[in-house]
Amino acid sequence: MEFITEDFLLNGDTARILYHEMAADLPIIDYHCHIQASHIAENKSFDNLTQVWLADDHYKWTALRWNGVVERLITGDADDYEKFLAYARTLPACIGNPLHHWSHLELKKYFGYHGHLTEDTAPEVWDLANSRLGLKGLRARDFMLQAKVEKICTTDDPADDLKWHKRLAEEDFFVKVYPAFRPDKAIEITKPEFLPYLERLGEAAGVRIDHLDSLLQVFLNRLDAFETLGCRVSDHGLTKLPWAPARETEVRDIFFRRLGGEALSDLEAEKYQTFILSWLAKQYARRGWVMQLHFGVLRNVSPTLYEALGEDAGGDAMGDTPCGEKLAGLLWSLERKRALPKMILYSINPGDNAVIDTLAGCFENGEARGKIQHGCAWWFNDTKTGMEAHLQTLASLSVLGSFVGMLTDSRSFLSYTRHDYFRRILCEYIGGLADRGEYPKDYKWMEKIIRGICYENAKEYFGF
Amino acid sequence: MEFITEDFLLNGDTARILYHEMAADLPIIDYHCHIQASHIAENKSFDNLTQVWLADDHYKWTALRWNGVVERLITGDADDYEKFLAYARTLPACIGNPLHHWSHLELKKYFGYHGHLTEDTAPEVWDLANSRLGLKGLRARDFMLQAKVEKICTTDDPADDLKWHKRLAEEDFFVKVYPAFRPDKAIEITKPEFLPYLERLGEAAGVRIDHLDSLLQVFLNRLDAFETLGCRVSDHGLTKLPWAPARETEVRDIFFRRLGGEALSDLEAEKYQTFILSWLAKQYARRGWVMQLHFGVLRNVSPTLYEALGEDAGGDAMGDTPCGEKLAGLLWSLERKRALPKMILYSINPGDNAVIDTLAGCFENGEARGKIQHGCAWWFNDTKTGMEAHLQTLASLSVLGSFVGMLTDSRSFLSYTRHDYFRRILCEYIGGLADRGEYPKDYKWMEKIIRGICYENAKEYFGF
Amino acid sequence: MEFITEDFLLNGDTARILYHEMAADLPIIDYHCHIQASHIAENKSFDNLTQVWLADDHYKWTALRWNGVVERLITGDADDYEKFLAYARTLPACIGNPLHHWSHLELKKYFGYHGHLTEDTAPEVWDLANSRLGLKGLRARDFMLQAKVEKICTTDDPADDLKWHKRLAEEDFFVKVYPAFRPDKAIEITKPEFLPYLERLGEAAGVRIDHLDSLLQVFLNRLDAFETLGCRVSDHGLTKLPWAPARETEVRDIFFRRLGGEALSDLEAEKYQTFILSWLAKQYARRGWVMQLHFGVLRNVSPTLYEALGEDAGGDAMGDTPCGEKLAGLLWSLERKRALPKMILYSINPGDNAVIDTLAGCFENGEARGKIQHGCAWWFNDTKTGMEAHLQTLASLSVLGSFVGMLTDSRSFLSYTRHDYFRRILCEYIGGLADRGEYPKDYKWMEKIIRGICYENAKEYFGF
Repeated sequence: MEFITEDFLLNGDTARILYHEMAADLPIIDYHCHIQASHIAENKSFDNLTQVWLADDHYKWTALRWNGVVERLITGDADDYEKFLAYARTLPACIGNPLHHWSHLELKKYFGYHGHLTEDTAPEVWDLANSRLGLKGLRARDFMLQAKVEKICTTDDPADDLKWHKRLAEEDFFVKVYPAFRPDKAIEITKPEFLPYLERLGEAAGVRIDHLDSLLQVFLNRLDAFETLGCRVSDHGLTKLPWAPARETEVRDIFFRRLGGEALSDLEAEKYQTFILSWLAKQYARRGWVMQLHFGVLRNVSPTLYEALGEDAGGDAMGDTPCGEKLAGLLWSLERKRALPKMILYSINPGDNAVIDTLAGCFENGEARGKIQHGCAWWFNDTKTGMEAHLQTLASLSVLGSFVGMLTDSRSFLSYTRHDYFRRILCEYIGGLADRGEYPKDYKWMEKIIRGICYENAKEYFGF
Repeated sequence: MEFITEDFLLNGDTARILYHEMAADLPIIDYHCHIQASHIAENKSFDNLTQVWLADDHYKWTALRWNGVVERLITGDADDYEKFLAYARTLPACIGNPLHHWSHLELKKYFGYHGHLTEDTAPEVWDLANSRLGLKGLRARDFMLQAKVEKICTTDDPADDLKWHKRLAEEDFFVKVYPAFRPDKAIEITKPEFLPYLERLGEAAGVRIDHLDSLLQVFLNRLDAFETLGCRVSDHGLTKLPWAPARETEVRDIFFRRLGGEALSDLEAEKYQTFILSWLAKQYARRGWVMQLHFGVLRNVSPTLYEALGEDAGGDAMGDTPCGEKLAGLLWSLERKRALPKMILYSINPGDNAVIDTLAGCFENGEARGKIQHGCAWWFNDTKTGMEAHLQTLASLSVLGSFVGMLTDSRSFLSYTRHDYFRRILCEYIGGLADRGEYPKDYKWMEKIIRGICYENAKEYFGF
Repeated sequence: MEFITEDFLLNGDTARILYHEMAADLPIIDYHCHIQASHIAENKSFDNLTQVWLADDHYKWTALRWNGVVERLITGDADDYEKFLAYARTLPACIGNPLHHWSHLELKKYFGYHGHLTEDTAPEVWDLANSRLGLKGLRARDFMLQAKVEKICTTDDPADDLKWHKRLAEEDFFVKVYPAFRPDKAIEITKPEFLPYLERLGEAAGVRIDHLDSLLQVFLNRLDAFETLGCRVSDHGLTKLPWAPARETEVRDIFFRRLGGEALSDLEAEKYQTFILSWLAKQYARRGWVMQLHFGVLRNVSPTLYEALGEDAGGDAMGDTPCGEKLAGLLWSLERKRALPKMILYSINPGDNAVIDTLAGCFENGEARGKIQHGCAWWFNDTKTGMEAHLQTLASLSVLGSFVGMLTDSRSFLSYTRHDYFRRILCEYIGGLADRGEYPKDYKWMEKIIRGICYENAKEYFGF
């Protein structure tokens, strides 16, 4: 039984033309992911399918738990084939879940498997995949090249010395690998890890952080270091969007007290965060960088998972705190100070889609096409219906042709098929409009829009 | 003009196969409803169509009011045929409303009517239906048997003596009727009825409730009494989800002051509710019961309806208070105490769908398949589009194959057609995925999923 | 390449019949718009397409900014053809945006252009349209007559002397033009413009507003003046729905202190607003007027746009403050005082759709069909998907047949095509239900529903 055909997700005639003739072969710019630069530099190899596919993927872990699978077969000490088998028994029950699609797209693209992975077919899939991995088999860079990846931006802590990025920069590897600046740990002022982190951060810049000015000086140092290695983009992961303006003297005092070990109120923390985000935004704006804001996730909700496995283990959920007023306040204030950089906004809650689109619309201008972007459907929304909802709202409330498109947000070298998944959905959406007469069959313009969203817009927007 | 055909709601070829060959004939487990056990025990009969169909159905009342019908023809002293005629004049204007579908499904299944009920056809429908009701006609148990109902869980107050359930348990009626434990009145501590209720509750257990310990002792007594009669499930109807942890001594004091007639602050009430819910959750977990949480309804919003007709008269609306943080807090705390039972979460607001799915995902584990469930589309969402949205989100964010499926939530013996309605929508959804190539045409697995959702999963989950 | 065909948006066979035979030729009642009465009275003419099409349309401005166009070509000093050309270059990128449809519907209906407006076709479109405008060409009234407009309600400040409405009332123009009562400026008590506004308002009634009673007296005077000119409807634009009940003496004091130049707290302002809204609601109820509430917009979010262009310049966004409890409180209180008028509720956030439908349902009664209405998809929701979502939710949760239908909410004489757009979407929705067997092919009833929603219901509801 063949599953992933050439025309997977392409039901309309126009969609097929758009995808096969315009979208399928474009290179990939993956401007936000969690690949480790070291894995590329060392060209990581993988022992078997479980190692490359299941070992670090909390999406798959969550699916296994939903299916009642015990933890031993997920993150425990079961052997790799047992774990694979547990997944093969679970996957067919994941009907309508992106995992079911992603998994099969990956099996097809990298391992040439066209069928349905179930308990029955598990042995053949295991053998087939493993025969292509292992010694002299497919390694990290092979996956990237096979997927026509042109550029990626990893996600890096300002305290990171970027040694792997330096090594890659000196190399001649076809895929350009840039760091992205993600200073979350310097913003989460109430966490117990904050002070030890500041020490590490200071060391990276050779400066002791003992008041607000030295923190800002360290930031400048690290921004320069990142920029030297081609960084054009920052990223902020925020549980809630902060917006509590305060004077710099007050923030200086808050920070100083925290350095002294004092506990802060929620409002004090929010004032600090507002200040730092705004200050960084200004730096990004000066450098022409893009600022990404990811917000709304409830993190580490399950004490069991957090204690056993730490962060990013499947214990995170979608928050639903309204974001409109805070986001409006933040953007208003940056605009007022002429400190609003290019920005990509991602909320975890799809109920925020339209709010984000309309707020972005207030701040568009001639500085860049789609200066403020509504980032592609993120995490729990990175599903067929999530992407469709994102595209529909974006099209209805903005100029779809200005969208900078897809990213993987992934830790895995196999995830580039998500770009393919997105391109199919995009072509089906646009082709559907044309087939239903909601857009003329103007192939010149449809090609322009599709090439833009899949590749050209990101290139122009990030200034690569 | 025939309306409800064999293939009603089944537009795809695969959907038709799935429904007719796999779903249509499965028995029904209606694990949450508001049928009165006494009506089954006494095998209630009905004078005419208005009595069985309109007399107690606030969905239909609301439709009549939307159509500008005066209250005399709804809940007033108009005669039964006048009331029926008012509904026949209203129903065709309810295009796209589930009432329009449910009504016609019921007319077809129980009375053999295939046409469109309008003012013109009202007389023939009235005669046809009434000819099948009345003396020696269709009675309560006939509707249940005709619908292949196997088990139902009613909704019962802990103060109830369960005498009708006892009578039914002694009988040999094919349909098993279990009580469900719904202690809302013991939780709504700020209501004026709270103290008189506690007296009744105490009497049911033969204990005077004069402090928190005696309340908990009464709960234990009643939990045992319910369990003896086959109860496996509790239910909580909450305007807002409470989450305000407090020490037991504080709650003891709050309760004691309330017993003394003192008024409580909102926060005190929430602390009490948090404590009781958590305490009960632990009892449910020990017994292997399922805990249902229904939350978010704004109740008795219309003073006119409430004064004239009391509760459940059409004066309730959908609330929109964000639920994420409270729900996360509650689940986190129960998990931490190893006191998290199997749980089904229902929010009245469809904007919560994805929040619930992702939160549930954090607490799944090997204890049960789909241990924390996102309950089927509830009340205002119990519509075709509401169910589709629920299924799509559930599929995208969880393992659809683990879902325990549909319930009626109804007061009426005719409502079992809602299971049929759901099964058609489910088969259309799954068949559509296969027809569009989003799932392989793997009939073995589709059958497994459909049988599971329509019947097997509930049987296993509740441990009937 | 022809774009807008006869069957634009009509994909089903039934939809085509419904639209062409039942909906297309009905007259238009545009019960809420922002046309200036003076433009009708003077029968405004337009120099060229840019003047009539782009000069006052912030939807189009926002699209241009999303496309990276500089402000000079939008609201700046570029010449009219340059501005038109910038729009022609932007429009094809607006795939899926209602602007793309509205623009082409307008080009077809008023100027006979059937193709796709792009940079390539810009010159011919410019020439074609301009040849129909200008001296002796199409003027304001021509657009209205061509669109079969029968009645419109403008939006007017109580301080307005209504001289243009008087002039129109004395005339014999086919289209009846009524004022609508929109006292926002008298409600926004915290704004700096509040006191100067009160002076103007008092002058309009010949009364000095020096305490609450004189304000109410002025309202009575203006309500009478509006009613004399045929007004049957009021409108309130509210950032947030207020609901903070207070005694009249307290409100009297709040107002008096504000008159004295004192600053008010947020709660005081909300108490004042609650009082005024409730008081006005009672007046509307007595007169049989319809009260419209528009709420939830974040206004003037961009300081750049506000400073350069003032209000209504594209700097507004969608808010997301939950509305359920406030709205329930307001309606409950009005109902309790027997002071609830006919009401149309519009929220800017589509996440409120179902909340509004269910709240409205609590207050329906025999006084009017659909006494409390959920107004048609507003502003950012005035899109194909926004209307579909509105119709689906309305159908699922109310009686669709009672809906009073579409309005333009527009400043432009060309916008009447939005009624056509809506009618196509409505017919496609209803035809789709019939084609999929979700409604019988009962043309008598479908016609009744469609004629009602497109025309008859508004006529009856507003009492024109």
